[in-house]
Amino acid sequence: IRSKLPQTGTTIFTVMSQLAGEHGAINLSQGFPDYPCPPALIEALHHAAQAGFNQYAPMAGLPALREAIARKLQQSRAVSVDPDNEITITAGATQAIFTAVAAVLHAGDEAIVIDPSYDSYAPAIAAQGAHAIRISAGLDGRIDWPAVADAVTPRTRMILINNPNNPSTGVFTAADLDALADIAEHHDLLVLADEVYEHLVYDGVEHHSVLAHPRLRQRSFAIYSFGKTFHATGWKIGYCVAPPTLSSEFRKIHQFLVFCVNAPAQHALVEVLRDPTHWQSLPAFFQSRRDRLAQGLQDAGFQLVPSRGTYFQLADYRSIRDDLDDVAFARWLTIERGVACIPVSVFHADARQQGLVRFCFAKQEATLDAAIARLK
Amino acid sequence: IRSKLPQTGTTIFTVMSQLAGEHGAINLSQGFPDYPCPPALIEALHHAAQAGFNQYAPMAGLPALREAIARKLQQSRAVSVDPDNEITITAGATQAIFTAVAAVLHAGDEAIVIDPSYDSYAPAIAAQGAHAIRISAGLDGRIDWPAVADAVTPRTRMILINNPNNPSTGVFTAADLDALADIAEHHDLLVLADEVYEHLVYDGVEHHSVLAHPRLRQRSFAIYSFGKTFHATGWKIGYCVAPPTLSSEFRKIHQFLVFCVNAPAQHALVEVLRDPTHWQSLPAFFQSRRDRLAQGLQDAGFQLVPSRGTYFQLADYRSIRDDLDDVAFARWLTIERGVACIPVSVFHADARQQGLVRFCFAKQEATLDAAIARLK
Ligand SMILES: CSCCC(=O)C(=O)O
Ligand SMILES: CSCCC(=O)C(=O)O
Repeated sequence: IRSKLPQTGTTIFTVMSQLAGEHGAINLSQGFPDYPCPPALIEALHHAAQAGFNQYAPMAGLPALREAIARKLQQSRAVSVDPDNEITITAGATQAIFTAVAAVLHAGDEAIVIDPSYDSYAPAIAAQGAHAIRISAGLDGRIDWPAVADAVTPRTRMILINNPNNPSTGVFTAADLDALADIAEHHDLLVLADEVYEHLVYDGVEHHSVLAHPRLRQRSFAIYSFGKTFHATGWKIGYCVAPPTLSSEFRKIHQFLVFCVNAPAQHALVEVLRDPTHWQSLPAFFQSRRDRLAQGLQDAGFQLVPSRGTYFQLADYRSIRDDLDDVAFARWLTIERGVACIPVSVFHADARQQGLVRFCFAKQEATLDAAIARLK
Repeated sequence: IRSKLPQTGTTIFTVMSQLAGEHGAINLSQGFPDYPCPPALIEALHHAAQAGFNQYAPMAGLPALREAIARKLQQSRAVSVDPDNEITITAGATQAIFTAVAAVLHAGDEAIVIDPSYDSYAPAIAAQGAHAIRISAGLDGRIDWPAVADAVTPRTRMILINNPNNPSTGVFTAADLDALADIAEHHDLLVLADEVYEHLVYDGVEHHSVLAHPRLRQRSFAIYSFGKTFHATGWKIGYCVAPPTLSSEFRKIHQFLVFCVNAPAQHALVEVLRDPTHWQSLPAFFQSRRDRLAQGLQDAGFQLVPSRGTYFQLADYRSIRDDLDDVAFARWLTIERGVACIPVSVFHADARQQGLVRFCFAKQEATLDAAIARLK
């Protein structure tokens, strides 16, 4: 058989989590919490399953959940979304990303990906027989918009952005979205905005969503994750917000790719979406963990790239070991120092990005402290 | 935007379930139980969530669940499967089907689909830019294997089968699998075997799986559904069994299409897989419902095609109304008689199949009785 993804090996998150397990390392590699999700979520799941919500949900998602999302967008962003025709519930954000890409890219099309980029974007594009055109952005989060504009060709259909960005932690400014809108309008391109870390933005900075940008709203798939917002990455429920014409194409693929999504989990999420205090508390919750880890990494001799969003911290390790590339350093740190991290070069098409690893701080304070103790 | 699936509307299951809801009809259209799933499943789900299994499962699925599946295959079919390299847990069988198709079909390839066929097969193929070549089989379940062989071209990569077949209820004989193996070997084709109704085979007939066929085993993706076996279609957990080389290509797509699957549900399923009496009891459980519905439909004037497998019953309605095509009849029955069913022509590429509708008997006996009373 001729592989659809000949260049693809096992994702780095699986590789590093497995290595961490084998060597008893503290796992700050793959991004997931090691503390419990809200007890209310677990109780709501039990109630939903007991109440008998164990059969197919509607294809686009539970109406009550789509309405709760629309209310949340109205309250938190003053954005109006039609739950019937603009929201689709997915088996996690990854499925939403793949589905949006599959819905609009044909073989031979091009899509622009801004590196560092999450490791599913380029393979999702390649799986359509389309081509990912990868542009490098700075680790300070600055995107070279003229370079993005230059990368557009007659075959370009879509630009993928990640805001906040995993792993650079860059957060888009209002000017970034304007620049993106100019390019997208000028060349009539679609936008896929992966905004799964929308609530994880620090130091009082505001998150600007494509949904609140009048020109981008009409041409964007905006993608979200309950797992990230509710500390339950294993539930695998996300959603896609897009205007009716785009949602309609999205659902054509969705209904034959997965048809519908875990019903008891959808019911449970309706309950926890009633309370805005949960997501409003997330910046403070994560910022204190960020600061704790950052201090420890600095004391251990790492140079840090300030973390502005997501639950990740980038660190330059070259003053500790300058004889190893980032993949080798991540392995060494996992095996020899007992702390697992992610090499940042895997988020880049070229090997230009060197000397950086990524740590996850969505962990108990005791876990962060134990990792810091090992690193010192 | 240029649609990836220009011919695709909303799936018939959504359309008919919605119509049933709007008109207060008894819903025998979309296939799902209206009785509770096993209480043990619900308790196990609660325990899993409470025990903290709410973060990412491994990409290929929970090892304990894959081992439980391997044990089940050993016990029930004397088939040896390597849980590490041959089983992948998916977000339902639909995702497994889409993923297998996406893993091996490139734009321009062909895949043979045997009609009547489940409504996700052809769109999953079309979404790859590939072509579904559709062959009609008899409603007696007989497949014209020479016609299948004739449909093979140099572009053919795969044959999709559904055994037992939804909606014909046909069950493959050992000779059918031999004929399939001859064609697949001769032309070096892959096989996708949708065996989600493996335990729903009646009248003492044996289910022959591609997994137990030495020549097909090596070139097949075999796909299963916990939802169908455990009366929990809304949990959306299924799996794909395939030899290591095929599983490896399958997982390349899977890891970027969904990454992993609902963790608490996977943990819960490990528990209920310990007890073979559950699936051993399914033929008797469903056969009595099948017979109850069949008697009622006959009394109401339908001519029946005997149901040999799945939880569906085909019925010829033309002695009741011969002025309506099957789509119109299904709507009429739903709106005017208060019983929803599925028109069978939607499972065919050509409009040749007329005069038949499909009823689901995965319902409480009281539901079946109420539907029968309305039909009389
Ligand atoms: C889907 S596993 C990866 C989790 C994650 O988003 C990350 O670690 O970057
Ligand atoms: C995924 S909804 C359709 C359920 C089903 O398999 C059927 O009714 O045929």
